Amino acid sequence: MVTEELVFVNFWSSPFGCRVKIALEEKGIPYEYKEEDLFNKSPLLSTINPVYNKVPVLVHNGKSICESLNIVEYIDEVWSDRSTSFLPSDPYERSQARFWADFIDKELYEASKKIYRCKGEEQESGKKDVLRILKLIEGELGNKPFIGGDNLGIEEECPILVSWAKRCSQKESVAKSLVDPIKIYDFILYLNNYLTK
Amino acid sequence: MVTEELVFVNFWSSPFGCRVKIALEEKGIPYEYKEEDLFNKSPLLSTINPVYNKVPVLVHNGKSICESLNIVEYIDEVWSDRSTSFLPSDPYERSQARFWADFIDKELYEASKKIYRCKGEEQESGKKDVLRILKLIEGELGNKPFIGGDNLGIEEECPILVSWAKRCSQKESVAKSLVDPIKIYDFILYLNNYLTK
Repeated sequence: MVTEELVFVNFWSSPFGCRVKIALEEKGIPYEYKEEDLFNKSPLLSTINPVYNKVPVLVHNGKSICESLNIVEYIDEVWSDRSTSFLPSDPYERSQARFWADFIDKELYEASKKIYRCKGEEQESGKKDVLRILKLIEGELGNKPFIGGDNLGIEEECPILVSWAKRCSQKESVAKSLVDPIKIYDFILYLNNYLTK
Repeated sequence: MVTEELVFVNFWSSPFGCRVKIALEEKGIPYEYKEEDLFNKSPLLSTINPVYNKVPVLVHNGKSICESLNIVEYIDEVWSDRSTSFLPSDPYERSQARFWADFIDKELYEASKKIYRCKGEEQESGKKDVLRILKLIEGELGNKPFIGGDNLGIEEECPILVSWAKRCSQKESVAKSLVDPIKIYDFILYLNNYLTK
């Protein structure tokens, strides 16, 4: 077998990076990890991701793959011999999985940014948006086994989603890929301070 | 063979709908077309696309698939026996095709909206953004055979992209799916008027 060279370039707090890390762990693929300093980006990052200059990037035998969902699908296709598969085999079920992953990227990320970057009315409207979006996902999840924040009352509003998240976090690949929420919280405070300088 | 029921719900000027139409024509799949009135959306639309309430939607044997790239990938997977395939067979090449399709959705659509929805400085910045984005695609296209607006000087700035677009428009599936640019122009004028009422 040809020796694989697999480098995962990331920044520790990136939720998109977590996605990639979970995928690599789920498939049991060994890789080299490279931490990027987002406040002082390396020349490497603009070489491997010239379009966005963002993490995460996966470099496989010298070729780079960007955008987390794209990377996850790439991992799924290249290491299709592993016991874990990320997408269902049925085309309709696949289309639904892709739809919801894309929905989360488009809607949830933007709305949640309003919560930690804004204040007052805009922050409140961000909270409402996040709850509306989570409820949509909650409805979709229904009683399927697989698809935070107390202040939002997520557990009361979206019990199915919260119990799904708990199930996910019990998987070893997820547990070792997620970042301590306290560390993320501290980082957001630091980031807000940095952005408003 | 089971009779397939395939309904394509669209609005005539939608560039996302064109994508789906080209895919159906390329595969040579018969379908029923349903035009939506975007100014007076039907109850059907919110039933088949409850999350976004937007066109295009493909309804296949009663199950709906939303979001144009997702629909195109679904068509590719379900009718994989046809001679045309939309994604390359190599996983890396597939990841690149997905990356650029997603890039166009994320970047080009938003920037071009600024051109026809805004005026003055914002419109000028939209033009600059569109050119920057087209040049990135131009660079990626290079001398590969497959991946407008005179006022933007697109032909001079992006000759490879323009010649690719011409090659595409000579394909029968594309020629019969694209909408007359004059009709689109008139519709944008009408839309701007409608939005500023």
